[in-house]
Amino acid sequence: MSASTVGPADIEQAAGRIAGHVRRTPVVEASPGVVLKLEMLQHAGSFKPRGAFNTVLAQAERPQRLVAASGGNHGLAVAHVGAALGIPTDVFVPDIASPLKVAAIRGRGATVHQDGANYAAAFELSAELAAAPGALAIHAYDAPATVAGQGTLALELEDQDPDLDLVVVAVGGGGLLGGIAGWYASRVPVLAVEPEGCPAFHDALAAGRPVLAPVGGVAADALGASQVGQWGFATAVAAGVTSVLVSDEAITRARHELWATHRIATEPAGAAAYAAISSGAVEVAGRRVGVVVCGGNASPADL
Amino acid sequence: MSASTVGPADIEQAAGRIAGHVRRTPVVEASPGVVLKLEMLQHAGSFKPRGAFNTVLAQAERPQRLVAASGGNHGLAVAHVGAALGIPTDVFVPDIASPLKVAAIRGRGATVHQDGANYAAAFELSAELAAAPGALAIHAYDAPATVAGQGTLALELEDQDPDLDLVVVAVGGGGLLGGIAGWYASRVPVLAVEPEGCPAFHDALAAGRPVLAPVGGVAADALGASQVGQWGFATAVAAGVTSVLVSDEAITRARHELWATHRIATEPAGAAAYAAISSGAVEVAGRRVGVVVCGGNASPADL
Repeated sequence: MSASTVGPADIEQAAGRIAGHVRRTPVVEASPGVVLKLEMLQHAGSFKPRGAFNTVLAQAERPQRLVAASGGNHGLAVAHVGAALGIPTDVFVPDIASPLKVAAIRGRGATVHQDGANYAAAFELSAELAAAPGALAIHAYDAPATVAGQGTLALELEDQDPDLDLVVVAVGGGGLLGGIAGWYASRVPVLAVEPEGCPAFHDALAAGRPVLAPVGGVAADALGASQVGQWGFATAVAAGVTSVLVSDEAITRARHELWATHRIATEPAGAAAYAAISSGAVEVAGRRVGVVVCGGNASPADL
Repeated sequence: MSASTVGPADIEQAAGRIAGHVRRTPVVEASPGVVLKLEMLQHAGSFKPRGAFNTVLAQAERPQRLVAASGGNHGLAVAHVGAALGIPTDVFVPDIASPLKVAAIRGRGATVHQDGANYAAAFELSAELAAAPGALAIHAYDAPATVAGQGTLALELEDQDPDLDLVVVAVGGGGLLGGIAGWYASRVPVLAVEPEGCPAFHDALAAGRPVLAPVGGVAADALGASQVGQWGFATAVAAGVTSVLVSDEAITRARHELWATHRIATEPAGAAAYAAISSGAVEVAGRRVGVVVCGGNASPADL
C-alpha cells in the first residue's frame, strides 16, 4: 500500500481475511454482454460488510466494541459484523434516517443512538464512544482497510468473468469505487456512475481533489456523501477511472426494469450503475460490461 | 428416451437447442451447505421458458402460431418465447387468473383469451385454435420436450456445483421435477416439495400412479396442478424421488426470510423448496443441498 492508494496485494490480503464471513455473490449475464454482479445478495443487503469485516479482522487485538455513524447500509453492515463476531456494536444514526434501515440495524442487536440532524452530526456524537479504550470506529468509506475490503468484490468478479472490457459501478463516498479501481488498476477500465444530485466524485475529478458537493435525489440515502474519501479518490485517479452522471428518472426506470425483466429487487442506489447502461449513456455493443448491483435495502413495495 | 421417461441424453440435446435463448441462472451459497439456484432470474421470471423453447425449437418445421392454456408462469413463458422467436402467440387464461400475470402476458405481445372458470375450461377453449394447421400447442408440463427442457436447469446446476448431496425442488405438474430427476437419475437424490394444499405428486407416489388431488393454498396459482403429468411422474419414480409436504405458513415464512436475509424476491411457489430447509423438514447439517428458487412472479409489495 503506497501513501494513499490501495492495490491488488491489499485486496488479496483482505479476501483471505474475510473468506467465510462474506458471501461470494453470483453474476448473471442479463442480456448479451451485460454481466450483473448481484451484490445486493450480500449479507446485510449491500457490499458494505466486505470493508467492515476486513477492518475488524485486520486489528492486532480483537476490539471490545464497534462504533459506526450511519443510518444506512454501512450502519447495517457494521451491526451485522458485530453480531457475526459477537462484538457489542453501537450505531449512531441521524434523525432523518429511514425507519426501515434503523429497524434493521436494531434487529441485528446493535445499540442505536438516533440523534443529530444529519450524518455529520451523528458522526460527531459517535466520537466519544469511539475514543473509549477497546472501541473500534469503522469509517464508511475513507480508510484503507475499508477500500481494500470492498475491492474483494472486483477480485471475485474477475474470477467469475475474466473477459470484461469495462466495469461500471455507482459511487457514494468512493470506497467501493476505490476498491474496484485498486484491483483492476489500469488493466480494465472502470466507469464511476453518480446521480446528477450526488456528484461528489464527478466534481472531485473536475477539481483534481475531493471537494464538497451537493447531496440530493432518489439515491441520496446510500450515495449521498458530500465529499469522496481521499483513499478512494486517489486510487481511482491512479487507475484512470472516468465518470458519468445519470438522472433520477433514469435510476428509477432502471430499478423498475431490473425488477420487470430480471426479477432483481434493488434500492435506487443499487440500480444506478445499471442506469448508465439502460439509459444508453454507456454503449455495450461489441463489449462485455460488468455492472455492479450494489444494494437492495429498500422496500420493494413500489416495484 | 424410453416409453415414458426422460434421460440425460434428451436433456443434453435440449440444452444445445435452447442455448442463447435462456439465461444461465446463477447459484449462491446462501448459508453453509445451502446452494440456491436462482431460477427466478430466468426470462419471464420462472424456469418455464426452458421447456417452451425446447418444444418449439425441436419442431421439424417452424410453427406459425403458438398456443398455450395458462394464466400463470407457463402462459408468460410461451408469450416470451413467441415474442423472442417472432411467432404469433395465443394464450388462453381462466377468468380467475391474476390480473398481474395476465397483464404481463399481454405485455409480451400475446393475444389473451380470458374465458372459462378454471384451467381445464381454458384448456378446452384453446383446443380449436391449437388444432389449426401450423399451430403448436405447448403443454405446461406433461410432454417429453417440456420435461427435457426443464431438465437443463439440473445440467447447469451440476456444472455450477458438482458436489451436491441432495437437490430440493417444488412440484406442480411435475415437469421441472421430472427434468431434474431425469438429469441426476439416481446419482444424486432429489426431494419433491409440495404445499399441503397441493399434494399431487405426494398422492401419486402413494397411489403408484398420477391421481386427482386437491388444489389450494398460497402457492396454488403456480403449483396447483390437480394431477401430475405422466412423463414427470414416471421419470421421478424411476430416479427414486422422495416427497415432503410443507405448510402454507412455512412457505410464507420462507418467502419473507429469502427477502429479509438474502434480498431474493420470490413468488410463494418460488419459496416452497426453501421452506423445506428453513422449516427444518430437511436437515442440512453435514450435507451440501441444492435448492431451486423456481419463480418470482408475484408482487413484492408484501415483502
